[in-house]
Amino acid sequence: MRILVVNPNTTASMTEKIGATARAVASSGTEIIAVNPAHGPVSIEGYYDEAISLAGLLQVVEANLDVDAIVVACFDDTGLDAVRSLAGCPVVAIGEAAFHMASMLSNKFSVVTTLARSVPAIEHNLVRYGLATRCARVRSTEVAVLDLEHDAGPARAKIDTEIRRAIAEDRAEAIVLGCAGMTDLTRSLTADHGLPVLDGVGCAVVLCEGLVRLGLKTSRLGGYTPPVKK
Amino acid sequence: MRILVVNPNTTASMTEKIGATARAVASSGTEIIAVNPAHGPVSIEGYYDEAISLAGLLQVVEANLDVDAIVVACFDDTGLDAVRSLAGCPVVAIGEAAFHMASMLSNKFSVVTTLARSVPAIEHNLVRYGLATRCARVRSTEVAVLDLEHDAGPARAKIDTEIRRAIAEDRAEAIVLGCAGMTDLTRSLTADHGLPVLDGVGCAVVLCEGLVRLGLKTSRLGGYTPPVKK
Amino acid sequence: MRILVVNPNTTASMTEKIGATARAVASSGTEIIAVNPAHGPVSIEGYYDEAISLAGLLQVVEANLDVDAIVVACFDDTGLDAVRSLAGCPVVAIGEAAFHMASMLSNKFSVVTTLARSVPAIEHNLVRYGLATRCARVRSTEVAVLDLEHDAGPARAKIDTEIRRAIAEDRAEAIVLGCAGMTDLTRSLTADHGLPVLDGVGCAVVLCEGLVRLGLKTSRLGGYTPPVKK
Amino acid sequence: MRILVVNPNTTASMTEKIGATARAVASSGTEIIAVNPAHGPVSIEGYYDEAISLAGLLQVVEANLDVDAIVVACFDDTGLDAVRSLAGCPVVAIGEAAFHMASMLSNKFSVVTTLARSVPAIEHNLVRYGLATRCARVRSTEVAVLDLEHDAGPARAKIDTEIRRAIAEDRAEAIVLGCAGMTDLTRSLTADHGLPVLDGVGCAVVLCEGLVRLGLKTSRLGGYTPPVKK
Amino acid sequence: MRILVVNPNTTASMTEKIGATARAVASSGTEIIAVNPAHGPVSIEGYYDEAISLAGLLQVVEANLDVDAIVVACFDDTGLDAVRSLAGCPVVAIGEAAFHMASMLSNKFSVVTTLARSVPAIEHNLVRYGLATRCARVRSTEVAVLDLEHDAGPARAKIDTEIRRAIAEDRAEAIVLGCAGMTDLTRSLTADHGLPVLDGVGCAVVLCEGLVRLGLKTSRLGGYTPPVKK
Amino acid sequence: MRILVVNPNTTASMTEKIGATARAVASSGTEIIAVNPAHGPVSIEGYYDEAISLAGLLQVVEANLDVDAIVVACFDDTGLDAVRSLAGCPVVAIGEAAFHMASMLSNKFSVVTTLARSVPAIEHNLVRYGLATRCARVRSTEVAVLDLEHDAGPARAKIDTEIRRAIAEDRAEAIVLGCAGMTDLTRSLTADHGLPVLDGVGCAVVLCEGLVRLGLKTSRLGGYTPPVKK
Repeated sequence: MRILVVNPNTTASMTEKIGATARAVASSGTEIIAVNPAHGPVSIEGYYDEAISLAGLLQVVEANLDVDAIVVACFDDTGLDAVRSLAGCPVVAIGEAAFHMASMLSNKFSVVTTLARSVPAIEHNLVRYGLATRCARVRSTEVAVLDLEHDAGPARAKIDTEIRRAIAEDRAEAIVLGCAGMTDLTRSLTADHGLPVLDGVGCAVVLCEGLVRLGLKTSRLGGYTPPVKK
Repeated sequence: MRILVVNPNTTASMTEKIGATARAVASSGTEIIAVNPAHGPVSIEGYYDEAISLAGLLQVVEANLDVDAIVVACFDDTGLDAVRSLAGCPVVAIGEAAFHMASMLSNKFSVVTTLARSVPAIEHNLVRYGLATRCARVRSTEVAVLDLEHDAGPARAKIDTEIRRAIAEDRAEAIVLGCAGMTDLTRSLTADHGLPVLDGVGCAVVLCEGLVRLGLKTSRLGGYTPPVKK
Repeated sequence: MRILVVNPNTTASMTEKIGATARAVASSGTEIIAVNPAHGPVSIEGYYDEAISLAGLLQVVEANLDVDAIVVACFDDTGLDAVRSLAGCPVVAIGEAAFHMASMLSNKFSVVTTLARSVPAIEHNLVRYGLATRCARVRSTEVAVLDLEHDAGPARAKIDTEIRRAIAEDRAEAIVLGCAGMTDLTRSLTADHGLPVLDGVGCAVVLCEGLVRLGLKTSRLGGYTPPVKK
Repeated sequence: MRILVVNPNTTASMTEKIGATARAVASSGTEIIAVNPAHGPVSIEGYYDEAISLAGLLQVVEANLDVDAIVVACFDDTGLDAVRSLAGCPVVAIGEAAFHMASMLSNKFSVVTTLARSVPAIEHNLVRYGLATRCARVRSTEVAVLDLEHDAGPARAKIDTEIRRAIAEDRAEAIVLGCAGMTDLTRSLTADHGLPVLDGVGCAVVLCEGLVRLGLKTSRLGGYTPPVKK
Repeated sequence: MRILVVNPNTTASMTEKIGATARAVASSGTEIIAVNPAHGPVSIEGYYDEAISLAGLLQVVEANLDVDAIVVACFDDTGLDAVRSLAGCPVVAIGEAAFHMASMLSNKFSVVTTLARSVPAIEHNLVRYGLATRCARVRSTEVAVLDLEHDAGPARAKIDTEIRRAIAEDRAEAIVLGCAGMTDLTRSLTADHGLPVLDGVGCAVVLCEGLVRLGLKTSRLGGYTPPVKK
Repeated sequence: MRILVVNPNTTASMTEKIGATARAVASSGTEIIAVNPAHGPVSIEGYYDEAISLAGLLQVVEANLDVDAIVVACFDDTGLDAVRSLAGCPVVAIGEAAFHMASMLSNKFSVVTTLARSVPAIEHNLVRYGLATRCARVRSTEVAVLDLEHDAGPARAKIDTEIRRAIAEDRAEAIVLGCAGMTDLTRSLTADHGLPVLDGVGCAVVLCEGLVRLGLKTSRLGGYTPPVKK
């Protein structure tokens, strides 16, 4: 089985980190192809970055359609619907993957993400997926995405603080980490805080594997009808 | 006052029609600048078209930021959040404009749009705006966007049928026309069916004028914080 | 164009202030007719005041039906549905006007109103309009309506405090001022707090102008069917 | 125990019928005082009638505050909040009474009311009470309120038709009769259709008796704070 | 009239206390039969206890079907749907009873219950009943159910604290006590905190009496169809 | 990896069929232990059957806690919360599994289940999970669970009819089969109707495998705190 993992930003080091996380989780028979667009924003922080990443994202997907499933590896679930329409195979974005998985481990979860400017986009996704009622609160740490690449120390402390608040104030029973750059912290945060801490990359990989194993594909009726050639 | 009206697709004839509708509605002191991207899809029909239109859409907006307000003239409200983040002035998309206006004229409205593949995107917008509870049903006529340009006869009959169903089955008290290409039918449909029929282009223009007159701008806190230069 | 602005309470000084705000916002061709009932409560603070104001409100509307649109100038949107049924022209209440406009400038807004006793009525309106999901919180300042008339100093400080809390605690991106008596504070609060601050009177006037310009009227099907003479 | 049953319209024959229904249901120790306003509309059909009935309604309540509980006997729950603020004792309206009771007898219920114009007001109440999710559909029979007084034959057939549709199409497990004028049909409709058919008057009377027996009163914090004398 | 009051746990002293509360509230002609299962958990604290109590609960109900109505006297509303399917007479659980009654006395209420582990089950019930929008917050005191039996002093102080917080932070206008073991505190808490404090046992008894008086029974269509003998 | 698949009813032939489905889907390294309770109902059709199955269900789970994950193989998700509290490992029920998976393949899905009496329980689960907004309609075929065992012919025709209706009337883009007894029809229905048809057993197995691979467990904070020994 071949799974395309697309990082919608152009930062190759982040693509590598995401690819490594995906490979660590994937079954032995699964090949992970981690890619990023050739051009576009170096990180996705807010609505504008999302929008300008889409052309490059769709281009790199279109060049790699010979796969069994696709992971969209940005926590905003950037371009998810367009990739589904284009590809037809199962397509899972890392935000939705983590929300669905957290809903099966807890009565309520909180999200801990990077910047405040990303919070509304995440909240809109939750509403649209139906899972807003399962999410107690979307919290931001004010850690920039690329800082997670360069300096994990203070970033980790800020994440710890927000997790503690989520448990005490939100009565969260699980935590979803709201950035693909946080994937390597999952296990240590789970151990330290005593509750499930979910990373979307891992969740999306196992969901894709599962959907492929079940022979299921994206519906071609209604909203995900393949695009008309123009 | 200068209002930029952006048609996110590249069909110039549609841009002209939208521009004409906007000018017919605008106050005497308002200049309408109707533009479309240089490249991108010739029509927006579904998620994929939306996504690939965004680069061109943002480019043409960025080239025209010297305006007082912006109308996004695609019923899917394509790129609305990104344009808001980029521009800072009031930005109103034609879908939301019509939904808000219809909510002040009726207890419940129905939407009559073109293709079934566009329905889920419109429903998602309604949920996100909060106005899903005000919309009885999103109906599709299976009229392609560009057919509205070329041949209004059979298209009109299909629209009539769906409006009659909306009144009888949905108990709709108003109708929102779900495509920028339907703007010239508004008044005759209102007359024929005896209920308010709203076109988003006109609604968006008067909303922009109003917001400018009130001195209001897009919030720069939270989700619409200006994009970071990268 | 003639717009009737009805203050549902009998305090003429407030009617004048509201009328002045409306005129300051209206287009040059628009005539504002600001009226209040001859009898009824001097201010609308809670459900009972709302109910006993309605007879006078409808009487003054009925005496002034020769207008193009009507603004109901009480933040509780007192009698909105009854005025719509009676009049048939576009009718916009100042609460809903501000909620709809704020929804196009921000991802989420908070309301800052006068007394705690008015909060549930405002929350009910938000739920009914569908916009409760867009409102982070309805906050009260415990400033009585008429104190806003007599002494703006301490009232302003309390409003400032609640706006600061709304930004910090509610992550509000815009503020709706929840009382027709606060209309003259809008611009200075916008400047001081760095986010859009909306006053319903101005919003309702430009919405009425827009609806009239578009040739739209209140639906006569369903809930707003004209009342039967009895 | 003394329960005031207020019919908000001025039709004395309907007040008598409502009073008789209330007495038939009340415990032996309960005195029913059935009243109607001296002036106002002869029936409540839509928003306008509701609004103009309120002054008379509050007047007749104010003249009869020496009671233990109050039933507002109009299915639109006309003036409910204002009566609560004024009276302080338990106040139950017949619409809400029937919705709450039906929620304890069925997974989902449908409402069968008189005119289409009354449907939106009932739907708004359901949303506000939280019980919209329990109501499958609000159906209208196009039987005018006063026709129920004068000629039950054809009205009964129309009600039967809508109940059959509610069972087949809405999967309703119970029926709420949406008009105080239908109270005498309850038992025969229950027998004929084989599901619980609820009349709000009876429900409201037993709810009032129950609240009084429990020593509970309307809250005086927040929205139902007693009105300020002005 | 005979009302079966079933305490789903096996603690006889709690059954007695619940029976006494029920009798204190019931009308003179009502006989209260308070029972508990022969085997099962001594208290219901969380999902597991709920599940293992059901066999005993249904057994004791089946042995006592010769009644007019049934009260399920656990605040989690344990087994409510199964008892309805089995019995056919009116069945009211104490959680729902208190939520419905509180909705008619206040704009919003908060729940004060025992352990944090019980909060999600209560929240799920509120969502399902539709009344989640009426409940400001479910608060836990960390008082174990059986401690309420043995030592009311410190338990009372913790309940007081949470009620004060509910008024200040949640703007609750009424309080629902979330445990059958708190039934004897209702009146003194009402007096001390100046707002309605509701106990589910009393509410359920008067609701049952009311439903029986109205001749209403659990619907036998749809979800509550009697179980098939197997 | 060892996954316990619990059929909550006592029909061994159904347990075998479910076990075979699970094994067909599971990875090579996964051992499926398919069990059913020693006593309890032969099928779960409605609330009462659910309730009386729980003691046996929990007993068989308790006897098999030495596993990595647990599948609750009844479409009503019988006892899901109790099993989570008891076991601590990942626990996935087949209803929720299919709803979550369908949400990642379609904008909206419909459920096709057996008896009308099961519909409300499924609808309640959807509301609680947050996914009611993703489900267009829960449809029943009036095929009894055990008939699916004995005679697939007419049952298949009824399922076909409901799927066609779901596509035409509900605009469903995917179908969830609402009974563990339908698991062997999935692929042929997918092929015949041209949209994803999901069976909960397969979905639950791959979700369990994925959660185990990610090292995630049921949260032990809040609602799923382990039961207190009593």
